[in-house]
Amino acid sequence: MKKPSLTPLAQSLPASVPFVGPETQERQMGRPFVARLGANESTFGPSPKAIAAMQKAASEVWMYGDPESHDLRHALAAHHGIAPETIMVGEGIDGLLGLVVRLYVGEGDAVVTSDGAYPTFNYHVAGFGGMLHKVPYKGDLEDPDALIAKADEVGAKLIYFANPDNPMGSWHSAEVVQDMIDRLPEGCLLILDEAYVDLAPEGTAPALDTSTQNVLRMRTFSKAHGMAGARVGYAIGHPEVISGFHKVRNHFGMSRIGQDGALAALADTAWLEHIQATVAASRDRIGEIARANGLTPLPSATNFVTIDCGHDGGFARAVLSNLVAAGIFVRMPFVAPQDRCIRVSCGTNEQISAFEKALPAALAAAHENLK
Amino acid sequence: MKKPSLTPLAQSLPASVPFVGPETQERQMGRPFVARLGANESTFGPSPKAIAAMQKAASEVWMYGDPESHDLRHALAAHHGIAPETIMVGEGIDGLLGLVVRLYVGEGDAVVTSDGAYPTFNYHVAGFGGMLHKVPYKGDLEDPDALIAKADEVGAKLIYFANPDNPMGSWHSAEVVQDMIDRLPEGCLLILDEAYVDLAPEGTAPALDTSTQNVLRMRTFSKAHGMAGARVGYAIGHPEVISGFHKVRNHFGMSRIGQDGALAALADTAWLEHIQATVAASRDRIGEIARANGLTPLPSATNFVTIDCGHDGGFARAVLSNLVAAGIFVRMPFVAPQDRCIRVSCGTNEQISAFEKALPAALAAAHENLK
Repeated sequence: MKKPSLTPLAQSLPASVPFVGPETQERQMGRPFVARLGANESTFGPSPKAIAAMQKAASEVWMYGDPESHDLRHALAAHHGIAPETIMVGEGIDGLLGLVVRLYVGEGDAVVTSDGAYPTFNYHVAGFGGMLHKVPYKGDLEDPDALIAKADEVGAKLIYFANPDNPMGSWHSAEVVQDMIDRLPEGCLLILDEAYVDLAPEGTAPALDTSTQNVLRMRTFSKAHGMAGARVGYAIGHPEVISGFHKVRNHFGMSRIGQDGALAALADTAWLEHIQATVAASRDRIGEIARANGLTPLPSATNFVTIDCGHDGGFARAVLSNLVAAGIFVRMPFVAPQDRCIRVSCGTNEQISAFEKALPAALAAAHENLK
Repeated sequence: MKKPSLTPLAQSLPASVPFVGPETQERQMGRPFVARLGANESTFGPSPKAIAAMQKAASEVWMYGDPESHDLRHALAAHHGIAPETIMVGEGIDGLLGLVVRLYVGEGDAVVTSDGAYPTFNYHVAGFGGMLHKVPYKGDLEDPDALIAKADEVGAKLIYFANPDNPMGSWHSAEVVQDMIDRLPEGCLLILDEAYVDLAPEGTAPALDTSTQNVLRMRTFSKAHGMAGARVGYAIGHPEVISGFHKVRNHFGMSRIGQDGALAALADTAWLEHIQATVAASRDRIGEIARANGLTPLPSATNFVTIDCGHDGGFARAVLSNLVAAGIFVRMPFVAPQDRCIRVSCGTNEQISAFEKALPAALAAAHENLK
C-alpha cells in the first residue's frame, strides 16, 4: 500500500525543535534541575489573583473558551487606550508568529531577521517556505539600520525585530524603534516582538499607533505576568492587519483558563509592579555574582541577564554544560560572537543562590578545558 | 505607504467563523443562556481529580508545558496498549486537524468529506488551498462507500470521516470502519475523528493498528472527559506519520494546566464510567422529551441527541431560533436533508428541564410560521 505523501514543502522540512525543553533534559539526566533558569520563565509566579481566577476557571473548563476572547480583548484595549479591533489574542506569541508568517509568506518570499534572534520565528518561516535573510547584531544589539537595508535589498515581506532583545537582553530606545518604523520599505510588515517590554525602562516602547498597517506589535502574559504555561499572547496592529487572523486562526483554540487568568493578571497592576522590582533586584544579584566570578554581565531590559564569559563559544558552552550537569538549567546564544555568553533567567533567591554556588566550579572546569 | 500584502492564497480566503460561540450570542441578546446545550460540551464537568490537578498546575503555570507532553503521552500509550511514538498530543483535535491538512494538502490537492460534516476541517482545507469534494450522507449516516469512491475518483490526499458522527450522532460498527480502512485508495490518508468514541457502544472503534500509514485516529479530552476549554487532543497513527507533526507543530503550544488535567482525567476511569452512564441517561431523557412533543430522536452514540423535527430546514431553523430566544443554546445541522433536525447536547437535569420547558412554545411558534 502506497503511503500518503507530504506536500513537497513538508517533505523538505526537517523534524526540528527550536528549543529542547528542561523536562527533556531532566529525563535524560535522570533527576530534576535544582534551579530552572533557562527559559526566561517568571519563577516568581503569576499574580495570586490570576492563580485564583485560573483555579476557579478549572471547574468551568467543560466550556470552550470564548472564540472572540471578548472580555480579555476589551480589557487590553482599555489598558492600552486602543480599540478592541486592534487586538488579536492568540495561543502565545509563538502561535501568533506562525499565523502571521502563514498569512504573509509564500514559498520563496523574503523575510529578514537578525542572526541569532528568535529561533521559533525562523522555524515558522522555514515551515512556510520563506527565504530567511539574516543580518548580524551590532555589538550586542540588534541593528535596525542593517535590518532595514537588508529588507530593502531583498524586498522582504516581514522583518522580525525584538525590543528588548532575546537572547542578549539589550534594547533600543523608543526613538530608535520609531525611526525604524518610519523608514520601513514599502509593503514590508515589521513584527515588533515586545515580549519583555513590561520589564524594560520607560521609553523603550514607541507609542502604540494602530493607524499604520506596517507594524504588528507582539505582547505576552508569559514573561512579566508569569503565565508561560497558560499560552496567552496578543498582537496589536491596524484593524485590517488584525482582521487577517480571522482567515486562518483556530477560533476555539484559546484555553478558557488562560483567558480568565490573563484577565485577572492584567488587572493586578500591584503584582506587576512587585515583579518589576523583584526582577530588577534579581538582575542586580545575577550581575554581582557574575562580577564576583570575573565575568561581565550585560545590561538587561528583560527578566534575564546575559553574561559575557570572556572567551569564545566553546568556553561558554563548557560553562553551560557544567552548570546543567550541576542541576542549573540555563541557556546561551546560538551564534558567534554572542555565544561567548550564557543567559541566566531571574529567579527566586533560592534559585539564584543555587546558580551562585554552582558557578565557580563550572567556570574552573571550563578553564581546565581551555588548557 | 504601500501596505503589506497577504499571500495570494490568504487574500482569497474570507474572514470566517466555523461556529459562532455562545458568548457571542449572549452578548448580542444582552443576557446569558439558561441552558448551554449547543456545543456538545460536557456540562457534567471534568473529573474532580482533573479539576484538582488543574488547580495545582495553576500555581505552577509560570513554567512552559513540557514540549514532548511526555507524561501524558506515555500514560495514553499505556492506556491504549500502544507505543508512545504512535501518539501526538496537540491543542485539541481542531489544532491537530490544521497541522495534518498543512502537512498533506497543497494548493489544489483533493480532499474528501461528507456534505454537512465538521466545518472546522473544511475551514482548514480551504485555508491551505485544498480542493474539497463532498459526498452526501446516506440516510443519517456518513457513507463509507461514497467516501472511498469519491477519493478514488479525485485522487484524494485525505478523507475525513467521523465515527461516531457529528452532527447526526450516528455511527458505524468497527467492522464497517475496518472495511473502509482496508479499501482506502493508494496514497490516501484517512482521518478518523473519534472525538465521541468514549460515549459509543462497545464495537464502534476498530482495534488500534499503528502499523498502517494510511490512518490517523483523532481523540480528545473535550467531550467525555469534560475539558473542552483546556485544549487537549491527540492523534494516534504510524510513528512515521506521527513524526510529521514535529516538522510544523508549535512545540511549546500545550497548556501546562491542560497537560496535567488530562493526565488526571485519564487515570480517573471511575469518573469516565460515571459520565458514560450519566450521558446515556441524559440521551434517554432528551429522547423522551422529543417524543412527548411529537418529534423523533435519532439514535446517538455521542453526548448529544439529534432530533428530527419532522419538517424541512426552515421549520427546524425556526424551532432553533425560538429555543435560542428562550435562552436555550442549541445548534443544528447545516445541510439538507439533515437540517430538518436540531441537535441538543446532554446536560444536567436542570439544563434539560429548561429545554423541556421551552420546547413546546418553540415548536408551536414554528408551526404558526408554517401556516
